[in-house]
Amino acid sequence: MLIDDAGRQTLLTTYRDGLLNDTLPFWTKHCVDREHGGFTMSLAQDGTVIDTDKGVWQQCRFTWLLGELYNNVEPREEWLELAQHGARFMDDHCFDPADGRMWFHVARDGKPIRKRRYAFTESFAAIAYGELAKATGDERYAEKAVRVFRRFLDHNLNPQRAEPKFTSTRPTKGIGFPMIAIATAQELRDSIGLPDANAWIDRCINDIRKCHLKKEIQCVMETVSPNGDLIDHFDGRTLNPGHAMEAAWFIMLEGKLRGDNDRICTGCQMLDWMWERGWDKQHGGILYFVDVKGLPGHEYWHDMKFWWPQNEAIIATLLAYQLTRDPKYAKWHAMIHAWTYEHFPDPEHGEWFGYLHRDGSVSSTLKGNLWKGPFHMPRMQLICWKLLTGFNDLML
Amino acid sequence: MLIDDAGRQTLLTTYRDGLLNDTLPFWTKHCVDREHGGFTMSLAQDGTVIDTDKGVWQQCRFTWLLGELYNNVEPREEWLELAQHGARFMDDHCFDPADGRMWFHVARDGKPIRKRRYAFTESFAAIAYGELAKATGDERYAEKAVRVFRRFLDHNLNPQRAEPKFTSTRPTKGIGFPMIAIATAQELRDSIGLPDANAWIDRCINDIRKCHLKKEIQCVMETVSPNGDLIDHFDGRTLNPGHAMEAAWFIMLEGKLRGDNDRICTGCQMLDWMWERGWDKQHGGILYFVDVKGLPGHEYWHDMKFWWPQNEAIIATLLAYQLTRDPKYAKWHAMIHAWTYEHFPDPEHGEWFGYLHRDGSVSSTLKGNLWKGPFHMPRMQLICWKLLTGFNDLML
Repeated sequence: MLIDDAGRQTLLTTYRDGLLNDTLPFWTKHCVDREHGGFTMSLAQDGTVIDTDKGVWQQCRFTWLLGELYNNVEPREEWLELAQHGARFMDDHCFDPADGRMWFHVARDGKPIRKRRYAFTESFAAIAYGELAKATGDERYAEKAVRVFRRFLDHNLNPQRAEPKFTSTRPTKGIGFPMIAIATAQELRDSIGLPDANAWIDRCINDIRKCHLKKEIQCVMETVSPNGDLIDHFDGRTLNPGHAMEAAWFIMLEGKLRGDNDRICTGCQMLDWMWERGWDKQHGGILYFVDVKGLPGHEYWHDMKFWWPQNEAIIATLLAYQLTRDPKYAKWHAMIHAWTYEHFPDPEHGEWFGYLHRDGSVSSTLKGNLWKGPFHMPRMQLICWKLLTGFNDLML
Repeated sequence: MLIDDAGRQTLLTTYRDGLLNDTLPFWTKHCVDREHGGFTMSLAQDGTVIDTDKGVWQQCRFTWLLGELYNNVEPREEWLELAQHGARFMDDHCFDPADGRMWFHVARDGKPIRKRRYAFTESFAAIAYGELAKATGDERYAEKAVRVFRRFLDHNLNPQRAEPKFTSTRPTKGIGFPMIAIATAQELRDSIGLPDANAWIDRCINDIRKCHLKKEIQCVMETVSPNGDLIDHFDGRTLNPGHAMEAAWFIMLEGKLRGDNDRICTGCQMLDWMWERGWDKQHGGILYFVDVKGLPGHEYWHDMKFWWPQNEAIIATLLAYQLTRDPKYAKWHAMIHAWTYEHFPDPEHGEWFGYLHRDGSVSSTLKGNLWKGPFHMPRMQLICWKLLTGFNDLML
């Protein structure tokens, strides 16, 4: 199976028009809070705001998306204005003056509700500020981007400040930090020319290779001991195939940008292993959690189909096909694309459902909450559109 | 619909024999750790231990169950020995010497893994020590029971010591503390004659009536503001019907024991409201979470069927029928009993599955983990057996 020119054009149109005519208008119409600033992302199926609280991840991510579109698609004033609207809310309400860290969840008026022990919010703020620096030329945004990126790194590498959730009896290390550090550095290299981006990316790819990739069992481990040993308990056995495929395409992309076949092979290897483990051979789609030994896991929603693992699998398979021309990736891309587009889009009100049962039936009609906002899906649409635009040129 | 003598005997046999010939042997055969003490409760379908860690809730709860059976069913030496085995592990490994609080999750050898901000573990330890005090006459157990009960109360009423998960922007109050305080005080009144049990029970029932019962919308709220106002956000709108029905039968039971019809009416009212909201009219069984306004909620497993809400609904409907002889409760009991016994028992290896999809199909074959152990189900079997034994006598 291959992607021919007609197929390429059909896919390109699906992703591009989905982004510009469906996803973006849904969010810009429903989520912009002109009274208190920022974005109210907790939307019912038809876009009605059902919780006025604001998730800070989503404030940052939508701001990033708008800046990314302004910088890389076309300089629409609407996008820049909305990105600045998002950044103002971040500046005014999303940092705790007591310690400089970011909140995770704030009320509509910006009053803080919750901070998490983890500092991923800071990584999303960094890429948002980075795009605004590029869009406006304002150095202050670039400084903020660098500052929150350093905080993200520091908090994850020196976490002693927060009261830990677990004792020191069984320390663990997740793939989340190195993979998000790669993606964040890639974005900041592109937007503000972050000087040490390559060094961070190389360090984190090496870390993932050394600790999370297990050739002997053909698997990408989500959580390991600090030196990369398997942890034979529920948490340590829990795989997150969609997350691993997301890491896979970050690494493939780095190989492509740096002209390095080794990294491309690593990314493809990760995709191969986790496709095998994550693709639901019974119903189709990517499962949320899978136990590395095939034992029953302890997360209740393990066999549900969330929107974002499908998004990441769609990107990873398309990029792998572009880079290798191995027909199996075209086949996988066709499989995951078909299953996803059959089950997730909402034919009535547009945009996508986020939470399906294993068989593809809708579990919740929510369009947004603290976790689901305009990020994974429009990022997929944008990246796949752009990949397909230069599909033949970009092959290594 | 009524429960006639033949039906009563059939039900009684189902509960009694299920407890003595299925549930108890499954756990005593598979979970007792003779090497390190305590109980390994993370079991696969066939009883294989798949995670050697120990959840402290389950250490305490199984110890309670064994003591309860010894004191109230028959004085089998095996039960007492196992209860003492559980209490030794609690004594030796489940308290943090730094602050006296209990751990939530420890390794097989007792090394601590996690403490939670919440102090429910202490309530389960209290009832376990209480039964051992009664079974052995050893005053030291009674002292421990009182001490951990006070800690449970103090931690929940004066929570300033733990670093809070949320800021003070929007304080909340859950039904969990008052309802578990009622059940704990009821158990300690029975086992050690706790002197101020009635005062705590009355205070907590009043608190639930004042803050969590909403007559105008016919609903038991799981989470409200500290003075009982509805909180119109995801968390505040989220109802947990099985939890509310559990609270309902705690309050009915108090009415029965104290000969107080007001409390019985309150409990029945709670059951009526939450049956209406929690019973799944499409597939049967009690849903896990329901939004008070019928909006989509934000918990992924909202429409799954867990074992324990069914257990609590079975108790609540049977007790309500015994106390009121209202035929609707016999009908509801028959409905929930039939649905539960059709879907949860494992015909191959015994005991029950814990996690089903909405339609009753098995989502996970796990028999135990940090949350599922020998508690809700055997407690249901014991209580319903005993209720049916004195079914006609006990009617008010």
